[in-house]
Amino acid sequence: MAHASPVSPLAPKTTPEVGPVAGVRFATAEAGIRYKGRTDVLLLALDKGTSVAGVFTKSKCPSAPVEWCRDILAKGSARGLVVNSGNANAFTGRKGREATALTAKIAAKALGCREDEVYLASTGVIGEPLDATKYEGVLEETAKRLAPLPWIDPAKAIMTTDTFPKLATAKVKIEGVEVTIAGMAKGAGMIAPDMATMLSFVFTDAAIDAPALQALLSKGVTDSFNAVTIDGDTSTSDTLLLFATGASGAPRISDAKDPRLARFRRALTGVLADLAEQVARDGEGARKLVRIHVTGATSKRSARRIAMSIANSPLVKTAVAGEDANWGRVVMAVGKAGEPAERDRLSISFGPIRVAHEGTRDPSYDEAEVSAYMKNDVIDLTVDLGLGRGADRVMTCDLTKEYVAINGDYRS
Amino acid sequence: MAHASPVSPLAPKTTPEVGPVAGVRFATAEAGIRYKGRTDVLLLALDKGTSVAGVFTKSKCPSAPVEWCRDILAKGSARGLVVNSGNANAFTGRKGREATALTAKIAAKALGCREDEVYLASTGVIGEPLDATKYEGVLEETAKRLAPLPWIDPAKAIMTTDTFPKLATAKVKIEGVEVTIAGMAKGAGMIAPDMATMLSFVFTDAAIDAPALQALLSKGVTDSFNAVTIDGDTSTSDTLLLFATGASGAPRISDAKDPRLARFRRALTGVLADLAEQVARDGEGARKLVRIHVTGATSKRSARRIAMSIANSPLVKTAVAGEDANWGRVVMAVGKAGEPAERDRLSISFGPIRVAHEGTRDPSYDEAEVSAYMKNDVIDLTVDLGLGRGADRVMTCDLTKEYVAINGDYRS
Repeated sequence: MAHASPVSPLAPKTTPEVGPVAGVRFATAEAGIRYKGRTDVLLLALDKGTSVAGVFTKSKCPSAPVEWCRDILAKGSARGLVVNSGNANAFTGRKGREATALTAKIAAKALGCREDEVYLASTGVIGEPLDATKYEGVLEETAKRLAPLPWIDPAKAIMTTDTFPKLATAKVKIEGVEVTIAGMAKGAGMIAPDMATMLSFVFTDAAIDAPALQALLSKGVTDSFNAVTIDGDTSTSDTLLLFATGASGAPRISDAKDPRLARFRRALTGVLADLAEQVARDGEGARKLVRIHVTGATSKRSARRIAMSIANSPLVKTAVAGEDANWGRVVMAVGKAGEPAERDRLSISFGPIRVAHEGTRDPSYDEAEVSAYMKNDVIDLTVDLGLGRGADRVMTCDLTKEYVAINGDYRS
Repeated sequence: MAHASPVSPLAPKTTPEVGPVAGVRFATAEAGIRYKGRTDVLLLALDKGTSVAGVFTKSKCPSAPVEWCRDILAKGSARGLVVNSGNANAFTGRKGREATALTAKIAAKALGCREDEVYLASTGVIGEPLDATKYEGVLEETAKRLAPLPWIDPAKAIMTTDTFPKLATAKVKIEGVEVTIAGMAKGAGMIAPDMATMLSFVFTDAAIDAPALQALLSKGVTDSFNAVTIDGDTSTSDTLLLFATGASGAPRISDAKDPRLARFRRALTGVLADLAEQVARDGEGARKLVRIHVTGATSKRSARRIAMSIANSPLVKTAVAGEDANWGRVVMAVGKAGEPAERDRLSISFGPIRVAHEGTRDPSYDEAEVSAYMKNDVIDLTVDLGLGRGADRVMTCDLTKEYVAINGDYRS
């Protein structure tokens, strides 16, 4: 790791107790993908009957593992997951495809399943061929050590420059049977010369058919992972997978709209939102978590675009880093979003303090009060367009010199 | 000014000798818009018969002066230009409109012209009402000092945190009559709590009717100012105006496609490109100028979008700051642009060194050679998509800790 950064000041105070999830076992190993003597591979085994859903990067140049997962997702069943660090297997062309195929073959043999039931995710250096022959023997040995606990182990194994492991969990009942949801994520991390990559894996012992699971995940991701931005840069490797083992004994459900899933749906959304917020809290160099609330837009879609324009604005993010309630830059970011907006109807608040109203500075606001508010770790920025009922919320972090140092200094 | 930064290391070695342009006179004054004892207003007078064209910010929340200029542009004739610093007159609602009207009224009286012949541009703090009564007497006095030289004065007067004045000029003949083009620009500047603003004013003594002038400017801006990005943040005040006084005695031309304008068109494009490059060279905290060339795209429009995605990527820009030929991040930025791209056809070069080819690392490139190249002040980054004939070029600068300091530190 290029930087041994201190733990983010925005890290949760405690790591939650997570798992076990019936039907999920795992173990980590050293395969020597890039460095010797370092844990660099996570093997997860899933019980027979596990269904799977996935959401991936929208990049037009996705990594080989992303292409592999997309291809096999139509089958809808999963028995294994292999996650490695040290090599992203991205921009590796034909060799990349050969590496994914060989990894799946070795893992399938170790787990006793089909190759198209093995999901893959990689993070690390890009453009270098991944030598999957290094998994030979290693995964077989690892499979013998598979265990249902402790979940902190895989959460740590997938970290790169994350400064804390990211875990979230919830328990709900489906027709009286308790089911568990547990997930882990890694955020924007860096191994020279790598790129930021978001990976998240969520597991449940509920029994939900793959199409319903996909519907739940696709909906759940909108207001969680898709509502988080660190720097507007989309990785070639972003991967979010949801596995349902069915091992809880809860009744099998095949329709995402089944009313028996109401609580599960809320709990899943909660776990995804929790993990996504942890990713924002661990943004590179982040010192402040910024929650951007847009209301009064002409639609939710328009509110999302305006919120993202604000969240990705370097001028807004550096102002927050400087503890400056610079609403002029917020106006700028609203204006450049290209969405319906009328200056004379715009209101802007930092926390409870309205600083601008109806297209002009709010004469009643107290500069000392808003300056004191900006010293908080978590900043709520609210923009009301005054046009309609469209509302949305996204999360980001501030842009600090440390971000530039992490991403620009490591070769100097 | 919050920061007295040293002159950008990318500044041109010499300031060009510019002007006079027949029919253009100017003077600067202290109006006390925000601070006392400081030059803060530029008054320009244009001879009778001057035609005008303009291009403005696409922001949905433009400043009051931008709205004023847009409104009067249809008339097509100009006699004056008033530029002030200290107050951007943006996000000032009804009061902002009253201030522009009063400024035009006072300037029109001082210059002896109609109010709708007076163009306005403002830069400085936003959200504070601009007290235009401060111009009373001042503009009248200033009008008595109007002179055709020296052009360095107005170029300096419009600077905010620009570290050098930006001037460019060219001379061409139209039917044997020499005409001059001369322009000035200010770049991404900052007066706390202001925002970046690009202003540029270009003048010629050629005689060109307003519709033709507008066509020339709209075309010329595409590959100059619109091809430059510092941080992807669009100001509420961006203003580019082109005035043609006709005072050279060259024949009046009413059609932008008139073959007699061929040389003029090229010269104008050159002046705009020169000024735009100077803006990029003076980007906040910039240590390197980055020229991004995209070839082989499916269209020029697609090439532009891909180039802008690379130019606005914080991860690419921090890598350049760190003198790291991180082509993995370039792949990422190509991938996130959402435009047609195929990993297996992609080639990437830094300067003359091809680092990636056909979707994988170019095995022949020498890491030491590319590291040496990255130490240059000007970096040429070429991406070939291998799909079609669409090509484009944009310019940006690197993202340094100094950018964060300029925009984030001034309140601390």
